[in-house]
Amino acid sequence: MLDNTYLTFDIGGTKIASGVVSLPPAAGAPPQVSDRCEIPTEAQSGGDEIRRRLVAFAEERLRACAAQHRHIDGIGIAAAGVVDAERGVIAAATDILPGWKGQRIAEAFAAVTDLPVAMVGDVGAHGLGEAIYGAGRGHKTVLSLGLGTGIGGAYIVDGRLVTGAHGVAGHAGHVVSGLGKGFLCSCGTTSGHIEPVASGSGLATLYNHERPADVEPAADGREVCERAALGEAYAGRVLERSARALGECVAGMANLLDPHAIVLSGSVVQAGPVWWRALRDGFMDGALELVRQTPLIEGELGGAAPLIGAAHAVRTARRGE
Amino acid sequence: MLDNTYLTFDIGGTKIASGVVSLPPAAGAPPQVSDRCEIPTEAQSGGDEIRRRLVAFAEERLRACAAQHRHIDGIGIAAAGVVDAERGVIAAATDILPGWKGQRIAEAFAAVTDLPVAMVGDVGAHGLGEAIYGAGRGHKTVLSLGLGTGIGGAYIVDGRLVTGAHGVAGHAGHVVSGLGKGFLCSCGTTSGHIEPVASGSGLATLYNHERPADVEPAADGREVCERAALGEAYAGRVLERSARALGECVAGMANLLDPHAIVLSGSVVQAGPVWWRALRDGFMDGALELVRQTPLIEGELGGAAPLIGAAHAVRTARRGE
Repeated sequence: MLDNTYLTFDIGGTKIASGVVSLPPAAGAPPQVSDRCEIPTEAQSGGDEIRRRLVAFAEERLRACAAQHRHIDGIGIAAAGVVDAERGVIAAATDILPGWKGQRIAEAFAAVTDLPVAMVGDVGAHGLGEAIYGAGRGHKTVLSLGLGTGIGGAYIVDGRLVTGAHGVAGHAGHVVSGLGKGFLCSCGTTSGHIEPVASGSGLATLYNHERPADVEPAADGREVCERAALGEAYAGRVLERSARALGECVAGMANLLDPHAIVLSGSVVQAGPVWWRALRDGFMDGALELVRQTPLIEGELGGAAPLIGAAHAVRTARRGE
Repeated sequence: MLDNTYLTFDIGGTKIASGVVSLPPAAGAPPQVSDRCEIPTEAQSGGDEIRRRLVAFAEERLRACAAQHRHIDGIGIAAAGVVDAERGVIAAATDILPGWKGQRIAEAFAAVTDLPVAMVGDVGAHGLGEAIYGAGRGHKTVLSLGLGTGIGGAYIVDGRLVTGAHGVAGHAGHVVSGLGKGFLCSCGTTSGHIEPVASGSGLATLYNHERPADVEPAADGREVCERAALGEAYAGRVLERSARALGECVAGMANLLDPHAIVLSGSVVQAGPVWWRALRDGFMDGALELVRQTPLIEGELGGAAPLIGAAHAVRTARRGE
């Protein structure tokens, strides 16, 4: 019997994605992700309801697998919020998921299935996936950065996610940036974090904050990128400033951790060559001499990364590693 | 035979300190440091000469131990610069130690002794000492910050120093600070690192940079602290600004690593209550909710910390851990 097929979930603010992940017995071969589907999270219905719908979704998926005679070895969950992986509980969550904090996910699953269940944070799961099976594979330590609506991160050492004292490790959006000073971060500070000026929404914030009188506001980061691609000089300058500041922060994190590779994923890494050049310029300016050699690599697994990372987490937990 | 007594060295820019360190067989009991002495580094004489004098100093110390019938189990070295611990070579060094880069320390020792030798960076050794036997003992992961002429750091996980891909990990002085923008960092950047405005010399830099016409320049950080203690309002404001900016950076590092404890050592932590209060204010402002609980502890081993850490490093290496 092959011990390598997992049912996985990725719980975000708008949808709960699922997939069946077959992990290769040895590293090197790519994992297979099949049977992908999703349901809306319906975040406003509250944490209890999200938990109930997640478990019901999982039971339905398990029945579907059984009907196909697919053997499932465990359930891997990538969850938004701060995850207490040991207890299988959501330790903290933002207002995006009201009532999500405190949800006892492992317990809820134990009531309906005997399969092993492991839960990790979604950004951590994404990082695990990319570090072990994606852009970071073969590197001993990986700093993974997720640049989407917010900015998250994960630090993976020897294939293990560093979770820290409170399960908070990896919050790479909440490091100091002079450019961020005065902008309200999702964590509540205005002391100057990088997230509010370099995430997708941060690109729009920065753009709208200083825009000349003849420039229309941008709805989101994608719009800023589109305008830059269409040749709007102001949009290009905003992308450059944001990416440069982010690159300096990435350099600071790299000076602190000296990872073997840095993987960047999420919608913002699609921002184009102007963004990437400024990011690399900021990185090279802030990085110590030896750290400048560290590869900055674009993630390659996309939305499958958290599912693959969650599968890896449950396989690791099963083995008692 | 007890396997717990090590001859140790701490190589800095001005002096090479030495001591005989007896490590307790189990954690909890305090290590004993005896026979402390030092010689000048004579940095200007060049790296080859420093290496030769270090080895000669070690031979002399070994003879003294033999004369006292003291059994030595190994030699632990804490060295300035970036250390390649695996090869026992200095991977990089600043202008403070010209010609130090590239010195093959392990090889030089192997030519004169059969004892096991381990070398780690001095800031890493300091962190190891404090994390395992000092202020951080009992904590699973520790971020150690050394605030002296420069700013260094070390991240210790389960009693092991994280060294990173190039031996650079822990360079906590080279993270982004808006306050540092425009100030030349020891690494060469002016993009805004915390070291040039929050180290001991950085306190003086900041003080002298904006001082009112009627204020005399300060020679070093100690002088800034003394003036603040004597009631000079301007010196107090400089201490506050510097410590607050540093606290925000410490929060950013803590958001990224979520260590179980943060230990602060070095001359700057003597700066007094104004400095500590501002440091904690900056930390609380920038730290994520769960991270605010992380204890910020003053180091307790002083100059013995790197010697104790170096002894620990050679014991660990001997055991093949």
